[in-house]
Amino acid sequence: MEDRVTLVQNTTVVTPDGREDREECLAIEVPYKVALNDREIGASMVLETGLEEFGAGFLFGQGYITAPGQVREVLVCPEGRISVYADVDDDAEPKEVIVTSGCGGTGKISREMLEGAFDPLQEYSITFDEIRRFIRQVLHASPLGQATHCVHGCGFWADGKLQGFYEDVGRHNAVDKVIGAILLGKFSARGAIYTTGRLTSDMVLKCARIGIPIIMSRTAPSSLGLAIARRAGVTLAAYARPERVNIFNESFRIITD
Amino acid sequence: MEDRVTLVQNTTVVTPDGREDREECLAIEVPYKVALNDREIGASMVLETGLEEFGAGFLFGQGYITAPGQVREVLVCPEGRISVYADVDDDAEPKEVIVTSGCGGTGKISREMLEGAFDPLQEYSITFDEIRRFIRQVLHASPLGQATHCVHGCGFWADGKLQGFYEDVGRHNAVDKVIGAILLGKFSARGAIYTTGRLTSDMVLKCARIGIPIIMSRTAPSSLGLAIARRAGVTLAAYARPERVNIFNESFRIITD
Repeated sequence: MEDRVTLVQNTTVVTPDGREDREECLAIEVPYKVALNDREIGASMVLETGLEEFGAGFLFGQGYITAPGQVREVLVCPEGRISVYADVDDDAEPKEVIVTSGCGGTGKISREMLEGAFDPLQEYSITFDEIRRFIRQVLHASPLGQATHCVHGCGFWADGKLQGFYEDVGRHNAVDKVIGAILLGKFSARGAIYTTGRLTSDMVLKCARIGIPIIMSRTAPSSLGLAIARRAGVTLAAYARPERVNIFNESFRIITD
Repeated sequence: MEDRVTLVQNTTVVTPDGREDREECLAIEVPYKVALNDREIGASMVLETGLEEFGAGFLFGQGYITAPGQVREVLVCPEGRISVYADVDDDAEPKEVIVTSGCGGTGKISREMLEGAFDPLQEYSITFDEIRRFIRQVLHASPLGQATHCVHGCGFWADGKLQGFYEDVGRHNAVDKVIGAILLGKFSARGAIYTTGRLTSDMVLKCARIGIPIIMSRTAPSSLGLAIARRAGVTLAAYARPERVNIFNESFRIITD
């Protein structure tokens, strides 16, 4: 698949000393439609990896799928369609939607979701030593981020190891892929998620709704991302690097000696 | 307005040496509905600055407004509504939409827009010395980016000076504000735009559609952002810093000695 996710372009580098040629690597974003039980729900620009997971996670973000076990099958057609078949009510329309900063349709959330209550979380804690290993593994899981500067990575940790790693041009899409993996039964939500993207409202909301107790980012949260973390009772850690983590909420889940 | 765009939170910083308290500054994202001629078109999470411009630019991105001179008035209600009144057909629905990575509704583009032709550009060129001054001014125009690590800036340069600077939690929203300023007649599109955000397809598309001939980013383009730049004939420069610019397309508009 490597040749479908990046391409190389010639550029001209201009500095005070003059011009020179240089090759740069670009991430390839491709439109994919997402259908639920043969009804087209939307379309998104994606990096062409983890598309089964993306289909399931995208529909979760839109409110059509709500829990693991609902999806029966996902078919990916390379011409640009992800067909998800699930035991859900596919006539349900999301109610009043707010489009959030950061990601196309996966950043679309209903006001109901934004203001509703959350299910109780499964309890989970992580040691600082595990965090260090988790973050290092996510940051080294793929060369695409460093090569293109246009790809966000997202990993999931549980039972002392990296359970899954996904990436995409959009940070929301990368999270959707991890959530999709949970929905498809690859691992449970009882663990920690780490994203290279910012934790804006929609990012935290998705993770809290699926029941992930520890939500971490390499970079910043927004005010509303933190507010949602508080309402859901999740641990939110930002600016998280292997040797340093800022915990904004419910620090009890992060164990230090 | 300062107290409506950031807030301070206490966090716990955890390192191998232990825990300590720290104050962090967070960007505030707020939902605002956007209406056209009293018909609600959508809603977006925004940073509460430049909202008149955002309303106009958002509607341009969605395809309802197409040129300067159409908007008669914009009213901003601090409770969360931007009402745009314009001489346009407000019944027009965007055709088949693709949601793009990067930004909520402002990342929503129609397939028609993605594949259609572009109007000829007004000619404009910029010297490398101007680029240096332009980029420095944009990067120093506001403390919010550095303070929150959650805000994208976007500036517009023409006639040898910075004509406008806008920022938002979402990079698309920041561009929408610049485009909105053009639509509201604050300056013409004949100049250069510089964003701190990546140049994915939707970002380049908006700028090309309004007719901005030089599109620059502090960071990376995607494959499709570059493809759109080629189709529109715009100059695309990425990884642009005061002393170094990578030109990916139509380098003739950037003049070096």
